[in-house]
Amino acid sequence: MEKPTLPKGTRDFGPATMAKRQFIFDNIRKVFQAYGFQPLETPAMENLSTLTGKYGEEGDQLLFKILNSGDFLKDVDNQKLEARNSKLVTPAISEKGLRYDLTVPFARYVVMNRHEIGFPFKRYQIQPVWRADRPQKGRYREFYQCDADVVGTNSLLCEAEIILMIKEVFGRIGINDYTIKINHRGVLNGIADVIGATGNETPMFVAIDKLDKIGEEKVKEELRTKDFTEKSLTSLFEILNVKGSNRNKLAFLFSKFEGTRSGQKGLHDLEEVFELLESYGTDDNHVEFDIALARGLSYYTGCIFEVKINNVSIGSVSGGGRYDNLTQAFGDKENLSGVGFSFGVDRIYDAMEELGLFPKDAQISSKVLLCHFDEASLRYGLSVLSKLRAAGIASEIYPDQAKLKKQLDFANKKMIPYTIVIGSDEMNSGVLPFKNMGTGEQEKLEIEKIIERIRSQA
Amino acid sequence: MEKPTLPKGTRDFGPATMAKRQFIFDNIRKVFQAYGFQPLETPAMENLSTLTGKYGEEGDQLLFKILNSGDFLKDVDNQKLEARNSKLVTPAISEKGLRYDLTVPFARYVVMNRHEIGFPFKRYQIQPVWRADRPQKGRYREFYQCDADVVGTNSLLCEAEIILMIKEVFGRIGINDYTIKINHRGVLNGIADVIGATGNETPMFVAIDKLDKIGEEKVKEELRTKDFTEKSLTSLFEILNVKGSNRNKLAFLFSKFEGTRSGQKGLHDLEEVFELLESYGTDDNHVEFDIALARGLSYYTGCIFEVKINNVSIGSVSGGGRYDNLTQAFGDKENLSGVGFSFGVDRIYDAMEELGLFPKDAQISSKVLLCHFDEASLRYGLSVLSKLRAAGIASEIYPDQAKLKKQLDFANKKMIPYTIVIGSDEMNSGVLPFKNMGTGEQEKLEIEKIIERIRSQA
Repeated sequence: MEKPTLPKGTRDFGPATMAKRQFIFDNIRKVFQAYGFQPLETPAMENLSTLTGKYGEEGDQLLFKILNSGDFLKDVDNQKLEARNSKLVTPAISEKGLRYDLTVPFARYVVMNRHEIGFPFKRYQIQPVWRADRPQKGRYREFYQCDADVVGTNSLLCEAEIILMIKEVFGRIGINDYTIKINHRGVLNGIADVIGATGNETPMFVAIDKLDKIGEEKVKEELRTKDFTEKSLTSLFEILNVKGSNRNKLAFLFSKFEGTRSGQKGLHDLEEVFELLESYGTDDNHVEFDIALARGLSYYTGCIFEVKINNVSIGSVSGGGRYDNLTQAFGDKENLSGVGFSFGVDRIYDAMEELGLFPKDAQISSKVLLCHFDEASLRYGLSVLSKLRAAGIASEIYPDQAKLKKQLDFANKKMIPYTIVIGSDEMNSGVLPFKNMGTGEQEKLEIEKIIERIRSQA
Repeated sequence: MEKPTLPKGTRDFGPATMAKRQFIFDNIRKVFQAYGFQPLETPAMENLSTLTGKYGEEGDQLLFKILNSGDFLKDVDNQKLEARNSKLVTPAISEKGLRYDLTVPFARYVVMNRHEIGFPFKRYQIQPVWRADRPQKGRYREFYQCDADVVGTNSLLCEAEIILMIKEVFGRIGINDYTIKINHRGVLNGIADVIGATGNETPMFVAIDKLDKIGEEKVKEELRTKDFTEKSLTSLFEILNVKGSNRNKLAFLFSKFEGTRSGQKGLHDLEEVFELLESYGTDDNHVEFDIALARGLSYYTGCIFEVKINNVSIGSVSGGGRYDNLTQAFGDKENLSGVGFSFGVDRIYDAMEELGLFPKDAQISSKVLLCHFDEASLRYGLSVLSKLRAAGIASEIYPDQAKLKKQLDFANKKMIPYTIVIGSDEMNSGVLPFKNMGTGEQEKLEIEKIIERIRSQA
């Protein structure tokens, strides 16, 4: 029999990895909850009618589809089958797919539960998603998204709080060198207006989104092929090349955007977000008004965000923005405005590994291993174990009769920081050798003192 | 456009449900960790070669299979396709499936990571599984399992700790009326030996497993059709009908089992488990040696467990046992013995709802809602909000300009226990009206005092 393997693009998370991942998840969850977001979980499977057509044609191709149960070929049209047309046969043999993101399932949930939900509704959702993408470094077929969205309000407080939450999460997990890029769909439209490219926004957005990857000359080349004049390109880069503080950029654009309502609206929104941050008692440290940021164009209608961890190979680890049409795709007439963002935990994890940021004690393991020499000391150890656990201290006893070396090796391998070796002296006196496996220091203490010692170090 | 729906047998978990579910998950996780179990997560998708043949033919039918990406029909054998034989076509168009339980992925993980793992390996795993079962009350197509297994030791300490963990989890979540049934595969074999049914165990196990559902007469009827003599049936029920304490039952069976090694081994194991519980300083309260318990026969080789919550419609919520062949199915030669069990959280949830056991404050929500009358009081509120959050108190501000009634209704709907309404007096004095939404009581306090008040009540 061949050794079993994992499907490509998927991963197991063993104890050491899990500890680090849970450290990230726990901090994200705590921050989401501190800001009044409430948890939602949706099923891994959705009807294909829910998923299809929401992610563009490419996205539809990347959906994992689930084969119908039972005799799935029974009712398939003969012609389609004989033509061996996989695309045409798919809808006949598959009704369900795995979720591709958390936004569409959230929209479906909102539409289905509209009358029970209190608006504005702040929900967070931390679950895996699946994409039949070609696996490569940093790109997996199963990965977690951590989304927070608010629907049912236009308040720019939500945008400000997204920035606050990103800052707080990164502060908690120890990432200090990062940039929260912010822009506004209105600003992008405004640029198109003032450079004379109204109606020709899409190629402009697509090109400038690549600016930091391909550089100014390549962007210009691309736009020349899309009928942009030299004059419009000069105007465009006069704007994109503005340097200075966020305030400076806003002032410069206000002077440029006098004739464009859409542009003005974008600038006013951004200005208010910066002012709100001040009212919260924080500043725009880490926040960069990036005029060339143009992510997710088909989707967003207001502020857009992207977070980059600096000096790592991975780059963008979080993004989001405001959308006005969350529930429209499900035929909802009272369309709900919303704003949300998503932490890419797998990328944050990779970046933290690269930067060596994980706390050493991230391992989830027992604090104490009890070791023993024979049946009697093992039995005695069980009463000690019960006391440790009753005190809330994760602990275990080596379950088999084995040489002491083997038991201590086990503690080291499992990164258990303390051991207590029980022999006949210890059973008589109740004074136990409490050893710190890291330093090698050992003290003889009664169990109550050991519990105090561990608690004081927690 | 039609209203979207959920695939049958699947569920959304909104905020109120999530809070209760997380209460159960958190307590199970804490207990697993307190006993030295370490977390593992495996992918939702496994190769069908990993899953198939592990759950019997019925299980294979219940696997959700994932359609291969791209032009999946391209290489399918013409004859199979023309014959419209779904069973034969499946392997050609589907290579992956959704995991059916957590045990087979765990075994696969152990085989693949054998040389990195320190044994005995104690792992817990809390993830959803999927079964294409016919949905009905209490049976879902996506549900969570919470498994804890130890592999690489024969020590009966593991069995004793399973009982301790079940007791501790139920104690923490408030379930007091429950029974942990324990039996041993050797005892069942011993019974077959002494009633003269050696070699005819399987029909006996199948029949007596149904004893509490169909009663003694029906079990006898069934066994008569399987060639059991009246004499053997009389002997069987003489044993099954033994009443009294666990010790009494053990003593009675010891006297019966003199001639059966397998039976003696089973009794000795059970006796040791009871003795170990005493050494831990606990007793066999809630633990019932149930001679007729026969679950999971193809699988278990030692002790077996099943947990029933009493006086609810659902019944069995947890089960497990010892197995000697975890990794054999993957061609592993050094076969690893293990013992494990699984909490069925969906059933525990349903039982707790039925018994009204969830704490009222299980809702995950903000502790405080800040309300305001105008732009100025909203802005002032943001600085108050920052202080509350810095103190670790989950809180939020109503994001829009709205009538006070609407803001307070929002707090009630979201079950936010406290509100602070900010007007111009409050902005001048810094003394804020801190209102308990449950009791209606209101005190005028400075923010520092409010923080103290909330902390003292947490």
